[in-house]
Amino acid sequence: MNETVTIPRSVEWNETHITILNQQKLPLETEYLELKEIKDVWEAIFSLKVRGAPAIGITAAYGLALAAQSYQTESIIKFKQLLQKDRDYLASSRPTAVNLFWALDRLLSSVENVSSVNEAKTTLIHEAICIQIEDEEVCRQIGEHALSLFKDGDKILTICNAGSIATAKYGTALAPFYLAKEKGIELKVFASETRPVLQGARLTTWELMKAGVDVTLITDNMAAQTILTKGINAVIVGADRIAANGDTANKIGTFGLALLAKAFNIPFYVAAPLSTIDLKTNTGADIPIEERNADEVTHISGTRIAPEGVKVYNPAFDVTPNELITAIITEKGIIRGNYTEALANLF
Amino acid sequence: MNETVTIPRSVEWNETHITILNQQKLPLETEYLELKEIKDVWEAIFSLKVRGAPAIGITAAYGLALAAQSYQTESIIKFKQLLQKDRDYLASSRPTAVNLFWALDRLLSSVENVSSVNEAKTTLIHEAICIQIEDEEVCRQIGEHALSLFKDGDKILTICNAGSIATAKYGTALAPFYLAKEKGIELKVFASETRPVLQGARLTTWELMKAGVDVTLITDNMAAQTILTKGINAVIVGADRIAANGDTANKIGTFGLALLAKAFNIPFYVAAPLSTIDLKTNTGADIPIEERNADEVTHISGTRIAPEGVKVYNPAFDVTPNELITAIITEKGIIRGNYTEALANLF
Repeated sequence: MNETVTIPRSVEWNETHITILNQQKLPLETEYLELKEIKDVWEAIFSLKVRGAPAIGITAAYGLALAAQSYQTESIIKFKQLLQKDRDYLASSRPTAVNLFWALDRLLSSVENVSSVNEAKTTLIHEAICIQIEDEEVCRQIGEHALSLFKDGDKILTICNAGSIATAKYGTALAPFYLAKEKGIELKVFASETRPVLQGARLTTWELMKAGVDVTLITDNMAAQTILTKGINAVIVGADRIAANGDTANKIGTFGLALLAKAFNIPFYVAAPLSTIDLKTNTGADIPIEERNADEVTHISGTRIAPEGVKVYNPAFDVTPNELITAIITEKGIIRGNYTEALANLF
Repeated sequence: MNETVTIPRSVEWNETHITILNQQKLPLETEYLELKEIKDVWEAIFSLKVRGAPAIGITAAYGLALAAQSYQTESIIKFKQLLQKDRDYLASSRPTAVNLFWALDRLLSSVENVSSVNEAKTTLIHEAICIQIEDEEVCRQIGEHALSLFKDGDKILTICNAGSIATAKYGTALAPFYLAKEKGIELKVFASETRPVLQGARLTTWELMKAGVDVTLITDNMAAQTILTKGINAVIVGADRIAANGDTANKIGTFGLALLAKAFNIPFYVAAPLSTIDLKTNTGADIPIEERNADEVTHISGTRIAPEGVKVYNPAFDVTPNELITAIITEKGIIRGNYTEALANLF
């Protein structure tokens, strides 16, 4: 059975403009914005209207391709100068987003050997579309591999939003749920709300509900009780960075879920593209943990929930040690066991 | 060294009125209310301005004693009729609060054998004061015993608010921190915010800060990372009900912390008065887990944070199995090991 499933996308190319989902307004409002000028694209990335490393890269690529369409020159040298300037401008929208630079530079490389401005303009659009198509395919493959680990009726817990709207389509940790829905396999998802920024409550529930996937929201401290009483079969999460030995940095709370999965003897899966694996990082100990502003913890939607001046510890990520990870799922398949060897073999 | 420490109280008797801390306004505002009539007392309990089983019982007892002062009769029979009516009225303010009924009925019993209305009026005030003094002493003893488990410099994680403002004074799980402060012993407390109702963020941080206790706020999903990176030495929590075998029902999230404590090989302590131990409940399996309204999860301070219509699982409590509990601390001392035998021996 193949069901038609509406899987939300965060970025779409529309020839004269880029359409993006305004993730800042979710879940209260489903607002799509038309970005027609490069400054709109810069602002959308800067103000987190678009988020998720792949989605940011795709949006920036389309933004650069769009900007290039209006360059009034027949000189390829002048064209490339303008392109470099706009590349630098877009790269400044989120200076720590590696995927952003990668996508922009891939566009620059694509026009290195073009012979005319016209060809360059077409090539840039083509390359940006390729980035999106490739990411979608990577996510679909991750989803297919991950889905092979689940069976009809399974209940699966996830955290944060490793979802369709963070990528071209499907997402990583959420990809198997969309594919299951398409194939008529029933999976029940439990989404941990993911304080402090509430990506689980705001985004994961929203996109899964749009696609008709069965999702139940819990607060983060309900995980143990949920695993016990709802009979959770597995935990699946995305990744921000995977070290050479398999240690995985991901949204704060992931490490705790991995420890609970071990306590309950259920599998704990990490789903992520190869681009997340950083062989130059030996172990999790080499991954710096960003500590963010106390306001994220003391305020929710602008309302203060803790005393003025309270001390706060606000690590944005944690590192799950490789021994707690049952398997890592990439577009190239499922790896288990000796991660150091298996991850190196992927490249 | 004995330091003068300001430990907030939630209820105070002032002859012509009862002063309560309006816990609904914390932490944004520190508001004390003067309750002068029985309907004020009813409303304060009903609307959760006063919370915590012991604090509710104390407030109700003072409320009944206060109401009785204005009875215009010299007939002890008529007096007791009025008292019974007001007892029933106050008992209706929170129909599931066992401590409320217990305190009110203790006042009723105290005047069973009085010989005049005047004596009855004095006796009621005396009995209400006794309830508060006894609770304060119970909490202080729990604190002394608990403090013996910690050493200078220890970092301790707690959840919810088993604090001074939930009791007469000191609280249960928080009592050792106040006693440590008085004795000049430095303990660092980490308070888990305790979604969905945020008692940790709103109340525990507030009362510990008032007393100058070193407290750091984290979100619930930061517990594992905090234990690891901050070197947490122990977890201590309160209890809603302790079964005959030691299984402990407490605020949602407690069970997860107990599993994390085990994973990190640090002690997990339950601090609670004897009145929390219910020998008629054989095991945790016999304790019903209240599921509360989805709105608590989907809204924070009135603002929606999840999509309209999302499914929610919202258990208010969980049960920590006895094998995860290193020790139970009551006013009679610290018990470990075979809880079924040790708990029975307490009575």
